[in-house]
Amino acid sequence: MVEQTIPNWLKKRTDLTPDRIAIHFRDSSITFRELFYLAVKTAGQLSEVGLKKGQFAGVLLRNHQDTVFILLALQMLGIKAVILNNRLTPEEIIWQLNDSHSSFLITEEAFDGHINEITGKINDLPIITKQNLFQKKGSSPEILDEYHMNDVCTVMYTSGTTGHPKGVLQTYGNHWWSAIGSALNLGLFETDTWLCAVPLFHISGYSILVRSMIYGMTIVLHESFDEHETIKDIQKYNVTIMSVVSVMLKRMINSLRDKTFPETFRCMLLGGGPAPLSLLEKCIEKGIPVFQTYGMTETASQIVTLAPEYALSKLGSAGKALFPSEVKIVNSTGEKAAPFEEGEIYVKGPNVTIGYLNQDQGTKDSMQNGWLATGDIGYMDEEGFLYVLDRRQDLIISGGENIYPAEIEGVLLSHPDIIDAGVTGLPDEKWGQIPAAVIVRSRRSKLSEEEVISFCTEKLAKYKVPKKIIFVSELPRNAAKKLLRRKLPNLF
Amino acid sequence: MVEQTIPNWLKKRTDLTPDRIAIHFRDSSITFRELFYLAVKTAGQLSEVGLKKGQFAGVLLRNHQDTVFILLALQMLGIKAVILNNRLTPEEIIWQLNDSHSSFLITEEAFDGHINEITGKINDLPIITKQNLFQKKGSSPEILDEYHMNDVCTVMYTSGTTGHPKGVLQTYGNHWWSAIGSALNLGLFETDTWLCAVPLFHISGYSILVRSMIYGMTIVLHESFDEHETIKDIQKYNVTIMSVVSVMLKRMINSLRDKTFPETFRCMLLGGGPAPLSLLEKCIEKGIPVFQTYGMTETASQIVTLAPEYALSKLGSAGKALFPSEVKIVNSTGEKAAPFEEGEIYVKGPNVTIGYLNQDQGTKDSMQNGWLATGDIGYMDEEGFLYVLDRRQDLIISGGENIYPAEIEGVLLSHPDIIDAGVTGLPDEKWGQIPAAVIVRSRRSKLSEEEVISFCTEKLAKYKVPKKIIFVSELPRNAAKKLLRRKLPNLF
Repeated sequence: MVEQTIPNWLKKRTDLTPDRIAIHFRDSSITFRELFYLAVKTAGQLSEVGLKKGQFAGVLLRNHQDTVFILLALQMLGIKAVILNNRLTPEEIIWQLNDSHSSFLITEEAFDGHINEITGKINDLPIITKQNLFQKKGSSPEILDEYHMNDVCTVMYTSGTTGHPKGVLQTYGNHWWSAIGSALNLGLFETDTWLCAVPLFHISGYSILVRSMIYGMTIVLHESFDEHETIKDIQKYNVTIMSVVSVMLKRMINSLRDKTFPETFRCMLLGGGPAPLSLLEKCIEKGIPVFQTYGMTETASQIVTLAPEYALSKLGSAGKALFPSEVKIVNSTGEKAAPFEEGEIYVKGPNVTIGYLNQDQGTKDSMQNGWLATGDIGYMDEEGFLYVLDRRQDLIISGGENIYPAEIEGVLLSHPDIIDAGVTGLPDEKWGQIPAAVIVRSRRSKLSEEEVISFCTEKLAKYKVPKKIIFVSELPRNAAKKLLRRKLPNLF
Repeated sequence: MVEQTIPNWLKKRTDLTPDRIAIHFRDSSITFRELFYLAVKTAGQLSEVGLKKGQFAGVLLRNHQDTVFILLALQMLGIKAVILNNRLTPEEIIWQLNDSHSSFLITEEAFDGHINEITGKINDLPIITKQNLFQKKGSSPEILDEYHMNDVCTVMYTSGTTGHPKGVLQTYGNHWWSAIGSALNLGLFETDTWLCAVPLFHISGYSILVRSMIYGMTIVLHESFDEHETIKDIQKYNVTIMSVVSVMLKRMINSLRDKTFPETFRCMLLGGGPAPLSLLEKCIEKGIPVFQTYGMTETASQIVTLAPEYALSKLGSAGKALFPSEVKIVNSTGEKAAPFEEGEIYVKGPNVTIGYLNQDQGTKDSMQNGWLATGDIGYMDEEGFLYVLDRRQDLIISGGENIYPAEIEGVLLSHPDIIDAGVTGLPDEKWGQIPAAVIVRSRRSKLSEEEVISFCTEKLAKYKVPKKIIFVSELPRNAAKKLLRRKLPNLF
């Protein structure tokens, strides 16, 4: 049996449709032919500074077209990119570079402060800024003609419930199948244009890059999320698809006011945790087609998505596993759960990671016969639709009752004066834990703690009503705008 | 490494979009839910009569929804379907059933004449008609939950340049990747509806079945091709894609007169050999988007297709290899050919067969490092677009059916009065080409044209029987006595 290979994505795409636009970034537009040329040039520069096939290389870069050139150059050279979250502290960066035995760190001058703190802390680690890299003449690079499906392409670290983060191995095959599964679900139009305002260092952003090459699709790349810029560019470039998390979507909806998106806009891909019903309902009002999804670094982006025909009737569900993938719920006795029975969510499929870097035990603990235990909690209804209740570590247990922060947050966000809300569990002598809420009020609102509690009491069982409430100007979120719930307790 | 699996296609599709129409056939419409139910029921009936996972089973069935139930039941049971061309003679059928060690023949009463001639000719071979099968109560079948990509799903016989036909092994993975490659090229719309008026026993028809399940796409299934019915149903069902060969397309164009297709019709997928420029030009006039393709049984349908942006500028080209696949030209010295240099066409990709059934040597001869030598002749232009000049020099394509001169010559030479014989294709207005034979009789033989035709009709499918015959005293051969087939047409 010959091992499965697939042609070099960017090279193949350039051969098929060289003149299509690959990326709009700021005011420049780059075709696939140009992108291939620039990525090969970058590959030559990376080769000149000594990077070699099979090595790991840390990448600390912001959203920018230069980052795309570098990521694709690494991919074509067969160098495993350890893609670093831009918000990491120098200490966390050092830890991940050490853990992955990275041979280089590729970064940019914007991170000068970090570079100073890292320099010298890792034996012989060369640190190369893109500003220096792009000045090299470049040698003749050895570009891969084919990718082996089982070779590692990227490594992204995720924090578990305890201890140090783990490096998730993402193969070329994982990325390929993720793109295929998404296309089989969302369809594939020649006119598709995907707006990327999520970080390229997250799987949500990197996966858009992969899809672009495999589909022959244009990306509108933003340096960061701004609701006004986003709305403007959706109009300007006839964007058809955009990846968001709830907080981004809410800000966009608020800014839209009476306007809506062009008719060609066909998919708001909503990930990063359960979305409140009130938000989904507002999108339906505005005619914005929202596809809720469930996925993680370990599944190379989406693995469960709600199909268009169920957008209304299954509001609040993450949907069903994509065509190449499977999902199941395992209950507390280790059995497959009955419909509506809560349990841990397991996933399987060719997009699921082959394991964690240098973590044989961690991999064995999480994976059995191709099934990955996600640690997340959910249930399926009688038709097999997945409802994600919460990420396991966020679960609040109060007086023996399970409380899912997302549910309470959904209620809070339906209040007209509440812009953002996060719920967490605080230790309590009597109940073990009690739910507590951190709230961002709209600008001129004088909403009081009593009013919030009374609002919640109307909508929630008493044990779910937050027992403590504080008001802040902003919630702690990561670069992907995902709520960092574990940071909430410190605010009290 | 866990071996690559994929969920059972029909089961998964039914889980995702149960209420979409899977098949329109005559006046009935079947949803995926119903199709799954009927295919499982059929699987139970096949189990009851004794078919078991891993066996080979001959299938001699006409285009009909019943055929779909049976083919999908076999697929879900893990039984390798040896799909027999409906035009084969009983002798040819017996040969293929023996060669494949088929444990059963599943057929229908329409083939009663054949059944009578086959019965008793193969040791213990049970012959089951669908009419009998569908009367069984059915046992509880063991449906596969997952398909292994490397397992053989179907076998289709093709004649080579010499001797007997060879059974092409098509894995579940071959079919899967073929569907994916096609979608990445043609795009994928939720409203896609594919009209199938090509035989399900050909890869052109069977591949539409596979796409239907993987895409969640409706098929309009016809029992046979009729230009008027086709045009009617394209309107009635808002067909978006149809597979044709030149002769079908020509008849449709002639019948259309002043009319054209609805705007939603987006792809006329034209395979089965090079198309005449005049036909392509007429289609452009009528606004019918023609996608020329090149493919074969060994590539599980298309492998090279002309992308929409080049439909006009590269008229006459078959295009470029689909995203997951590769194509190259090898010249007479065994090197990769230069642009415009003619040579043999080689193909590679996950849709390419793993080899021929029970033909280790034949497989080795045709395949090296995953590259399949097609035997077809062509060249690439400076931009890498493939132009197919001719199929295997001597291959005759008549109404989309492949005819191999060697096979007909073999039959002719088995006649006691025939000393030598050469077969070639002659141009024909209606069929593109027709087979014609040049024969050397034994000295005192008075063998007539009619007698030769009647002799062939007993042993060969009708489309293979020579339509013109001439008698000569000697065939054109080179010094090594190799038949110079290209000189045969001049003799007519």
